[in-house]
Amino acid sequence: MADRPSLHEIGVTIGPIPGSRKVYVAGRRFPDLKVPFREIALSGGEAPLRVYDTSGPYTDPEATIDITAGLPRWREAWIEARGDTETYDGRPVRPEDNGLKPTGAREVRPFPRPPRRPRRAKAGAVTQLAYARRGIITPEMEYVAIRENLGREQALASHGGESFGAAIPPLVTPEFVRDEVARGRAIIPANVNHPELEPMIIGRNFLVKVNANIGNSAVASSIAEEVDKLVWAIRWGADTVMDLSTGKNIHDTREWIIRNSPVPIGTVPIYQALEKVGGRPEELSWEVFRDTLIEQAEQGVDYFTIHAGVRLPFIPLTARRVTGIVSRGGSIMAKWCLAHHQENFLYTHFREICEIMRAYDVAFSLGDGLRPGSIHDANDEAQLAELRTLGELTRIAWKHDCQVMIEGPGHVPMHLIRENMELQLSECHEAPFYTLGPLTTDIAPGYDHITSAIGAAMIGWFGTAMLCYVTPKEHLGLPNKKDVKDGIIAYKIAAHAADLAKGHPAAQLRDNALSKARFEFRWTDQFNLGLDPDTAREYHDETLPQEGAKLAHFCSMCGPHFCSMKITQEVREYAERHGMTEQEAIERGMREKALEFVAQGGELYRKG
Amino acid sequence: MADRPSLHEIGVTIGPIPGSRKVYVAGRRFPDLKVPFREIALSGGEAPLRVYDTSGPYTDPEATIDITAGLPRWREAWIEARGDTETYDGRPVRPEDNGLKPTGAREVRPFPRPPRRPRRAKAGAVTQLAYARRGIITPEMEYVAIRENLGREQALASHGGESFGAAIPPLVTPEFVRDEVARGRAIIPANVNHPELEPMIIGRNFLVKVNANIGNSAVASSIAEEVDKLVWAIRWGADTVMDLSTGKNIHDTREWIIRNSPVPIGTVPIYQALEKVGGRPEELSWEVFRDTLIEQAEQGVDYFTIHAGVRLPFIPLTARRVTGIVSRGGSIMAKWCLAHHQENFLYTHFREICEIMRAYDVAFSLGDGLRPGSIHDANDEAQLAELRTLGELTRIAWKHDCQVMIEGPGHVPMHLIRENMELQLSECHEAPFYTLGPLTTDIAPGYDHITSAIGAAMIGWFGTAMLCYVTPKEHLGLPNKKDVKDGIIAYKIAAHAADLAKGHPAAQLRDNALSKARFEFRWTDQFNLGLDPDTAREYHDETLPQEGAKLAHFCSMCGPHFCSMKITQEVREYAERHGMTEQEAIERGMREKALEFVAQGGELYRKG
Repeated sequence: MADRPSLHEIGVTIGPIPGSRKVYVAGRRFPDLKVPFREIALSGGEAPLRVYDTSGPYTDPEATIDITAGLPRWREAWIEARGDTETYDGRPVRPEDNGLKPTGAREVRPFPRPPRRPRRAKAGAVTQLAYARRGIITPEMEYVAIRENLGREQALASHGGESFGAAIPPLVTPEFVRDEVARGRAIIPANVNHPELEPMIIGRNFLVKVNANIGNSAVASSIAEEVDKLVWAIRWGADTVMDLSTGKNIHDTREWIIRNSPVPIGTVPIYQALEKVGGRPEELSWEVFRDTLIEQAEQGVDYFTIHAGVRLPFIPLTARRVTGIVSRGGSIMAKWCLAHHQENFLYTHFREICEIMRAYDVAFSLGDGLRPGSIHDANDEAQLAELRTLGELTRIAWKHDCQVMIEGPGHVPMHLIRENMELQLSECHEAPFYTLGPLTTDIAPGYDHITSAIGAAMIGWFGTAMLCYVTPKEHLGLPNKKDVKDGIIAYKIAAHAADLAKGHPAAQLRDNALSKARFEFRWTDQFNLGLDPDTAREYHDETLPQEGAKLAHFCSMCGPHFCSMKITQEVREYAERHGMTEQEAIERGMREKALEFVAQGGELYRKG
Repeated sequence: MADRPSLHEIGVTIGPIPGSRKVYVAGRRFPDLKVPFREIALSGGEAPLRVYDTSGPYTDPEATIDITAGLPRWREAWIEARGDTETYDGRPVRPEDNGLKPTGAREVRPFPRPPRRPRRAKAGAVTQLAYARRGIITPEMEYVAIRENLGREQALASHGGESFGAAIPPLVTPEFVRDEVARGRAIIPANVNHPELEPMIIGRNFLVKVNANIGNSAVASSIAEEVDKLVWAIRWGADTVMDLSTGKNIHDTREWIIRNSPVPIGTVPIYQALEKVGGRPEELSWEVFRDTLIEQAEQGVDYFTIHAGVRLPFIPLTARRVTGIVSRGGSIMAKWCLAHHQENFLYTHFREICEIMRAYDVAFSLGDGLRPGSIHDANDEAQLAELRTLGELTRIAWKHDCQVMIEGPGHVPMHLIRENMELQLSECHEAPFYTLGPLTTDIAPGYDHITSAIGAAMIGWFGTAMLCYVTPKEHLGLPNKKDVKDGIIAYKIAAHAADLAKGHPAAQLRDNALSKARFEFRWTDQFNLGLDPDTAREYHDETLPQEGAKLAHFCSMCGPHFCSMKITQEVREYAERHGMTEQEAIERGMREKALEFVAQGGELYRKG
């Protein structure tokens, strides 16, 4: 490793998570698949534990990372083999794509690889949904089946679960993936122009996923910093990343991000369209928006948030709210609708949007422009009117073979969360739900990763397929690296708690492994099995920094003289040594054993 | 303020929470009551908001704080007026009370106020339960009624709620408090030897409460530091504090804490009893334990955790667990039972314990010594067998007029949480439930304040009366000041989310006030209405440090050029200015208005 390039030279965070190594699994149908897992090595004779791995090649010491070259284009051969796409001369990059004046020079270095000719459908739809409906199992489908299947074969008995009508199978097969995609109950966001993608699936019968938002800041950060935001987010478990950049250099920044992203990238195209018209919503038009969709589809964006449900008649329904319209996209469209007194052009042109989406396989994320921004506004008529419209649009998109998920709130008190989920399932025909939080109270600015992790865990349990993270800086400022990590970890907790409660067959394996390590004082294993080994170790070492303490059969909470875990172990060993069964112990009592125990001078505590 | 003593001189954290002032409300029945509230001043013509205040005189600039004198003894006159207690020559402090050898000198400076003669019942019970059953409304009962009633009279319409069979009244009256205490459905922990107490109530039909644990560390910190742990915890909202000190100087440390505590103090007496027998559980005896109960009751401890449900026959039920017995008290008693092969002496002497508790009004917190320490072990037979025993003991305690709450788990996946609550209500006859978390997954060491805030919010909603906090250092090390605050804020979030979801009539007032401030860009109000104004302001200022930014109608997320909140406000103002109603807008359309809007040159965005 000594001659490998330094972090500084590479510009992004690389190297394995402590205690882990990367392993790849091949497909059965498609032997060239290399499905990544992270394998956590354990001590004490325990078998290593495999966990889902979103981090891409950046955590693989064997991989050569060069962000100026981009990631390997795994999917290219699969897409070509399907023979239903063609490359063509793409839309040229224009100054306004980067927010520049017509004669302006590019401020960000363009991604240096020679421009690639974009790819699109020769005709009709090249979406995973179209293939699934035709009974085709794609490499993407087998890839996600292997990925999701993680550990199920060795799953121990768990607590079962309450899945609220979900249909989680004991084993995920490629056929199951195909069926769920065909029903519209799951999506595999996978633009044909994003060959660097490691496919993943979003649906109620799969692991609950987490999205992290990134975006360039007003103060131009370096391109490496922008790419590192992505790399940092997926290192800690983001399953998809949304690039919410505004302002200048959007196009070039996005190109760097997509070319270096193994996870699906989502965007809100109206943000860039707004930049193209000088930030004036009333000057937006279908033509500018359409041009932006094509621009981004050619780059390889995997899903678009489209606020087509913010219909003109719904806008006055927000007038009595405490916090009005809080979605940026929602308020842009509301402003446009009022200024023109016309129906939202995203709604009126929805079929044309579908035509574009299906030609590249960009998935819809139907935006919740009227989501509540406060507990007061939760589940109000504006929100529900939009939700019904999203259900209507889902049917239209499905007619065009487009993949669809539905965005959801926002701020919702706990007792109204389940209603959100149930309405979404019925109104939107089981299309996957993708929610922001929800925040379960408004009173904790600075801690909204927690107010919302509570709601996220619950709505994930009830059936939400992907949770959009919230950082501690929500409502207050721009998240830094620590905030991004704190947000992701809070949401990985929520997603995993949901998987456990739904009764995912393999979810409890990791809990059991960690608890066993904890009970057996395998400190390093306990750190490494956690969501954040670095922080766990750091917290431990604050009190007991010596390396020897990681082998000690005690911790700093009770000190070396007394530890309840240690006592329990000794009690158990004693019980086992003497061949006691529970029934014996209860029926015969334990006087005799107890006498032996004392006679053996069972001083179980260390002198100190 | 310039001539007031400095923080350094006082040794504990004093001064108001930013933007707040202390106000006191007198009673109607008992006009000398001074029930504290924190009043948050608001700008923009908004009335100040009163919130529940656990912080005691430390946040009152008018109070003189001198930890060597202790807090004012508010309750002394009330207790004396009842005429049913007597003072007597208390048990002398012995070297072993502080973990010292028989000839050892005290290492911690004893609390300097001349020793007070302890107080106890002349005969029978002097508990709030005994008074309630006799139909008496005590000053403590009116005090908590006023305290709980907070804001209900001005409560706006809220979302209602789902209270799972709780019976939250629109207004809390002293009679309601008495009735709930008389039924055993709520407790007011209030030892007659803790006259410094500001009474509070724990019960399903009252605000959900939060407990924070403190305890002296092996490395002797100064007494001021120990007292400051308490003061810091109540500053951020701890409703009760448990002193879980082990090792030396327990007695003297506790005396300093109680004399300076306005909140109920809980302890686990078996910890100190164990110290008295050199840390060897098998040498524990009823006599040593009894002596410790009296010692602590005389000092003024308000509730005792007593692990009387860890019965001999249940111990083998833990043998197949992943994490065995994780309660320290539980494992001490398990060790004792096995070593002696005798039934737990706390169980066999339970009636004698009741006799002590009733003479001082120390409330029972019946300990869950067999709580699960991992997801795997949740809701197993060991846990449930103990729970049934706690129900049996509750009946005995109630026969003695003792106040009782029941401790609960632990580690529980979301779908098993409600079962815990329902079993507790039925097995323990609606005695208040007091749970640690529960943690909803084991896989996030370093973030267990979050894994458990999820479970705490849910179980609080379902009916748990008090939530014992968990800090980020749980399982890893000793919490520092930041960890304590992080744990408390996470739990205040959980408790408030639960209050909202239960449909507490006034809970949403604070959410509404904060959201309105947010919507109106009253930044300072937004910070001050939050649970942690300091952190909210600090996060905001990381991006926009200028004082002027607190008046700005934008924030760092979208910048000055575009803000969805700002747009919404303008849309709304426009709608109002033109007299639009929802119905008009929907029926007549808005073409005409829209034309006006454009004609007026409505450039709503700042140039920049």
